[in-house]
Order: sequence, then C-alpha cells, then structure tokens
Amino acid sequence: MGSGTQPQPDIGLAEKLFDRLAADTADPPGVTRQAYGAGEQKAHDLVAECGSALGLEVDRDFVGNTYLTLPGSDRTAPKILVGSHMDSVPHGGNFDGAAGVVCGIAALAGLRHAGTPPRRDVTVMAIRAEESCWFPASYIGSRMALGRLPPGMVDTLRRSDTGRTLAEHIGALGFDPDPVRQSRPYLHPERLACYIEPHIEQGPVLDEQHLPIAIVEAVTGGARYREGRIFGAYDHAGAAPRRFRHDAVAALGEFITGVNDMWRHLESEGHYSVFTFGIIGTDPAMHSFSRVPGEARFCLDSRGIRPETIAEIRSRLASLIEHVSERHGVRFELGPDSGPDIAAMAPSSRSGLIEAAQALGIPFHTMPSGAGHDAAAFAWAGVPTGMIFIRNVHGSHNADEKMDIGDFEKASAVLTRFIAAS
Amino acid sequence: MGSGTQPQPDIGLAEKLFDRLAADTADPPGVTRQAYGAGEQKAHDLVAECGSALGLEVDRDFVGNTYLTLPGSDRTAPKILVGSHMDSVPHGGNFDGAAGVVCGIAALAGLRHAGTPPRRDVTVMAIRAEESCWFPASYIGSRMALGRLPPGMVDTLRRSDTGRTLAEHIGALGFDPDPVRQSRPYLHPERLACYIEPHIEQGPVLDEQHLPIAIVEAVTGGARYREGRIFGAYDHAGAAPRRFRHDAVAALGEFITGVNDMWRHLESEGHYSVFTFGIIGTDPAMHSFSRVPGEARFCLDSRGIRPETIAEIRSRLASLIEHVSERHGVRFELGPDSGPDIAAMAPSSRSGLIEAAQALGIPFHTMPSGAGHDAAAFAWAGVPTGMIFIRNVHGSHNADEKMDIGDFEKASAVLTRFIAAS
Repeated sequence: MGSGTQPQPDIGLAEKLFDRLAADTADPPGVTRQAYGAGEQKAHDLVAECGSALGLEVDRDFVGNTYLTLPGSDRTAPKILVGSHMDSVPHGGNFDGAAGVVCGIAALAGLRHAGTPPRRDVTVMAIRAEESCWFPASYIGSRMALGRLPPGMVDTLRRSDTGRTLAEHIGALGFDPDPVRQSRPYLHPERLACYIEPHIEQGPVLDEQHLPIAIVEAVTGGARYREGRIFGAYDHAGAAPRRFRHDAVAALGEFITGVNDMWRHLESEGHYSVFTFGIIGTDPAMHSFSRVPGEARFCLDSRGIRPETIAEIRSRLASLIEHVSERHGVRFELGPDSGPDIAAMAPSSRSGLIEAAQALGIPFHTMPSGAGHDAAAFAWAGVPTGMIFIRNVHGSHNADEKMDIGDFEKASAVLTRFIAAS
Repeated sequence: MGSGTQPQPDIGLAEKLFDRLAADTADPPGVTRQAYGAGEQKAHDLVAECGSALGLEVDRDFVGNTYLTLPGSDRTAPKILVGSHMDSVPHGGNFDGAAGVVCGIAALAGLRHAGTPPRRDVTVMAIRAEESCWFPASYIGSRMALGRLPPGMVDTLRRSDTGRTLAEHIGALGFDPDPVRQSRPYLHPERLACYIEPHIEQGPVLDEQHLPIAIVEAVTGGARYREGRIFGAYDHAGAAPRRFRHDAVAALGEFITGVNDMWRHLESEGHYSVFTFGIIGTDPAMHSFSRVPGEARFCLDSRGIRPETIAEIRSRLASLIEHVSERHGVRFELGPDSGPDIAAMAPSSRSGLIEAAQALGIPFHTMPSGAGHDAAAFAWAGVPTGMIFIRNVHGSHNADEKMDIGDFEKASAVLTRFIAAS
C-alpha cells in the first residue's frame, strides 16, 4: 500500500452488523447460534450479504465456512486470513466469535474505502462450529477447512440437542461432508501468509489491567485427565480407625491441595499455568454417608504455554501421586491424557501486531490465551498465527458479556494497520 | 446363685442355632434378613422355638421384638436384659446382630442346665430393625420397645426395597403400630437392672490386638453433616487466573485435608475421634470439565466418645471453615447437624463385665464402639448399659465376616459369669 492516508476501520458498519446479528439471532437472554443450526446460518448469511454489498469476493467452502476476499495487487502472493467463528453457546453473548469476523469486515471495508488495494489478498473467514457445546470436539469448522478433522469424526460426532451427526447437519444445509471424510483441505497453509484472529478476552485480565487490547503469546496446551480415579477400600466409617483406612476421598483432598500448591510454586518459578478440577465425586452406586469411600473420581485440566511447563506439570503430578498413594494406601489411575498441544503464536505475527499498536499509540497487554480458539488449529497446521484480545467484562458464554465499542475500534485499527503494512 | 459349680454357656446349642440361621435365611453370598421381612421373621421364629424348647418364658411385644425369660428367684427385682438385633443387611454375614442373641441364649441355657435360678429374671431380647439400610433410622426396634421412636416416624419411614411404611410392615406381620404412635413403652427402664449387648466388632482392632473380646467404653456420638455445601463461582477454566477464582473444589480439597490434620492433632492430644467424608461431589447439572466449579457438596461424619471431644470438633471445624472460606473466597453451609449423642456405657456394667473376664482369665481389650448399636438406645433411655465385642475379621455388612467360635465361647462365658454374679 501507499504511504499516504492510513485506512481506518469502518466502525459504523461494525455497529450495524452487531445490531443485525443480535436481532436476527436473539434468544433471550442473549443470542443462540447453534453450530450448523438456524442461528449460525443467519449469521453466515449476514456476512455474505455484507460482503456482496462491499463488492468483495464471496465464497463458501464445502462445509459452509464463509469467505470475503479483498483482492490484493499481487494475487499470487500468500494471502492474509482474518477469522473467527459465528456460532455461540445457547443464550450466549453477541460478541464471542462474531466480534473477530466483524473486526475483519470493518478492516476490509476501511481498506476498500481507502481505495488502494493491499499488496496481497486479504480474506475474512467466518468459521462454523467452534463452540464445543454443540458437537463435542474443538475447532471443527477450521479443522475441516484445513483437512485436519480426523475423518471418522464427521460421522460420529452428534449434536447435543438434535442427536444428529455432523455429516447430517452439514448435508441438511446443502453442504458436503465427503471431502472431510477424505481429509481434503480447502485451505492450504503454504498459500497463507498468516491467520489473525481478533476475539474478546473471556477472562477478567484486561479489565483488571485497564487496557483495551492484548496481543496473545500462545493458546495454552496441557495435560488433561477426564477420567481420573483413586481406588482405596470401602470400610465402616465408625469401626475403621485411621491407620487401617484406604480412604479415597482423603487422598483426593490431599491431591487437590497438592496440585494447588504446585500451581503456586510453578507461578513463582515463572511458569504460566492453570489447574482446574472441574468435576469430582464419589461413586453414587457405592458411596454412603457412613462408609469410608473406596473410590473417588476427578477431572483435572492443566494448561501452560511452554512445553517445559507441561513437562514440569507431568513430572510433578507423578511425584505427588506417588506421595499421596503411599500416605493413604490408595492407587491412582489418571486415565488417558486428552490435553492439546500448545499453539504458539508466530513471532512474525506477534511483532507485526505489536508494531501496529505502537505506531497507533494504542496501549496493549501481552498474555496467553487460557481458552481455546480456532487460532490453535491454524497454528498446529503451520500457519503463522496471531491473536488480538479485546477487553470484555462479565466473562463470556453468557448473555452479560460486555465489550466496549471503543475497545473494539482500537482492535480494528490495529488489525487494519497490520494488514496495510503487510 | 450358689457358689458351687459355675454355669457354662451351651456352645453346642449356639453352633446349632448359627447353622439353622444360616440355612433358614441363606441368600448367597451370605444371608438376608430384611427388617420386618421374611428373613428377620424366620430368625425370630427360631429364637422363640428355641426358647420354648429350653422351657423359657417366650413373649413378643406389640411390634414383634421377641423375649425369652429365665425367671429369677426374686421376680420383682429389676431384671437383666441381654439383646441384639436379628435383621441383617442384604447378603450380609450370619453373626452381625444374631451373635448377641445367640450368646444370650447360650448363657440362659447354661444357667438353666446349672439348675439354680439366678437372683433376678434374665431376659434375652431379639430386636427388630436395627440395620438402617431397610428403614432410614437407627435402633428402630429397641426405640419402639422403649416408647422412644418419634411417633410420626412409624408412618413416614418407608422400607428401601418395598416402599411401604414401617407401620404397614408391622401390621403385615400381625403386630400393632398404634402404641408406637402414642410413644407407649413396652420396656420400662426403671425395671431393668442393665442391658448387655454382645456384638461382633465391625472393625479390625481386636484382630490387630490378638485379643478375643473387648469391653466397650461408649458408643460414639458426634457432629454429622449430610448436606454440606461450598459455594464459590463458576468460571472459565482457561480464562480465569488463580487470583480471580472462587473455586469450590479447591476449597473442599483444603477442607478435607484440614479435617484430616485436625484428626491427627486430636488423636495426639488423647481425643478418640473419627472423621469420614463418605460422599462428595460437584453439581452434575452445572459442572463441566473445563469450568471452575462454583459449588461442591460433601457429607461429613465426625465421632467421639467424650462430650469435650465433640465440643473441640465443632469449634475447630468453625475455625477451619473460616480460614478456608477466606483463602478461597467461598461460603460454607454445613446444613443440619444430625449427629447422635454419645452413649456412655455404665461404669457398673463395664466393671461387672471386666471382673467376669478377669475371674475367668480371659484377656480383653477396652475400646469405643465407632459403629452404632441398640445399646445406644438403652443408654440414652437411662438403662445401665454394657457391651461385649467379639473379634471378627473381614469387617461386617458383608458375607465374608468371620467370627471364631472359640472367641464367641469366651464372650459367652463372660456374659454367663456376669449374669451369675449379678
């Protein structure tokens, strides 16, 4: 692009799109955009309609992801992809996912208004089926576009509300699940200069830091155990003295406390990490008020953004388990580890976004993403990936999420500048 | 009684009774004697048949407890009552409960064979409905005989397998629930010299101590919380850093560990105590693998044999809860305390049993009963109460419980000597 007037994102258009989205997919409280359901389809239709009105190239891939492209001066150069998802959780907020797509559209509109085409093609991708409440898997739409969803899944994943398979839902909307069964990609990483995802922050960090945006360092990976068990021995609560017990709950209590101590230690050693026991319980078929519990179950989710952190977590968990097992005379089974790999953001994308923010005088934070995003699927596929977080209060996945349009404007300005400079 | 030959318990009769009981109520593995069901009724019929064969007075109270009486030389003197229950858990062992009744019968038979009547009436009581797996309340048969079951219960307690009320079950066997509704006693504490209950130990202590019997100090009471809850806040597992969390499971882990530390401290200070978290869990309607848990539930059973121990437990629990609540930003609700009062054994009964054992050269342990027994109902009613534990391996409430007949003989000898000396 020329070095004249910098293009500005079209925030008026963004506001109109947010209003239309909220109205078209309203399901009080909040919005509902089921993956491969009516709400998501309306959102994709709105994106396509808006792309046509802006004179952009409008495409859909075989599974219904929507693409709006502003042609660059060199159409053979690897292109810039900006994206996020359009589906929402039931009664969710209007901005989780959609803000990233609208941010991309606001940037494209601004670049178009500026008149000079960017050097390379810039495509905004509206992605399907990111929220795992609908189909129990992550990043379905982006992984299908990249030919990287395990081929069996399209016929085995069933939507939580309808019970129908992903393939059935894809077909019902007139799209084609066959390429997914063959791992055929629509997007080719080598033809992508980068993938940039703007997204609202789903935690309270930016609000606490009084900063409008963040440049993301990595999407966390970790060790995840959904089927942890501790086996002790059932016994009479009154008649079994302490020294005879193999109390699975006493062991679990010490394990939970030990993991939280480990978390503090890891943080003090400079390891960003996160630990959550989201589900725990005794066995309803066997437990009783007056019975020493012989079994306890737990789910443990641990996350980090550096491979050495995950290695430390695995090693310290093993030591802790050995210690607790010995003290309580119990046996642990962690079960399968379903933890995803860390998805590091590319240095080139991070520095490009940081330079754009600095050039505009927009203050920013740098932080990991503890939540998962389509960005992880692109990073795993080898695409240089970056993310911009937008401040958001009241968390996400609820109707109270709240993004200030001023913060959105700052994120859009950084994205527009980043594209213009690429 | 005269000071000539000491009467000996009739162990041959006891062995025959155990065999008949096992055969009549077999339900492999083990035996099943449902409270107010077929198995329990067969056991009571066998007791009555045996009493008649021995020429004892056979009675039944209005709710079907069975009494065999050997008349004493002074029939107006307060009488000795020996008892235990005849019901069992499903697929339970042959000795839990029944051993106490058979022990009493073996003593009565020995006293009868010896020819000289005891000074006071001696009655063996076969009790109904002690196992709370059938009707969810403790000591139902003994409390009804003492006129001390809360009157509404007879019409509200329902048997776990049939769904029918206690009153319906009492009526179905030809007995009468009306006196229970009026709190009318069949047994009058002032007419009882004592209540003695022999019972297998339900824990491993005598086996560990290599001792055949124990004289019980007290049946534990305590603080019992069946509806404990910790309220925190649900949050995104990835996006909520540690300092923002109100994690109910992290708080529960620390509470469990704190209670177990408290237990060690209380023991080191000489307080016999017991702590069990028999049931714990997150809320199935709200919990999720990747969600910081906003609620955790627990049942806490604490027991002791001295009122000052229970007072210490209550006070230290309150401090611990305050500490954990502050650290994790959560709120505890302990819910109602359903803990029973401590049932201390009477010094007169304890010393009488100890003297009998010492006179016979039978080694014994002294220990609390962590499990509940009908003896507690008699102690609460003001009857001087004593208990003899008989060594038993593999615990109770299962088909593997194992009592050696040699140990049973020693308990019967102590009981017989105790009666003869009274």
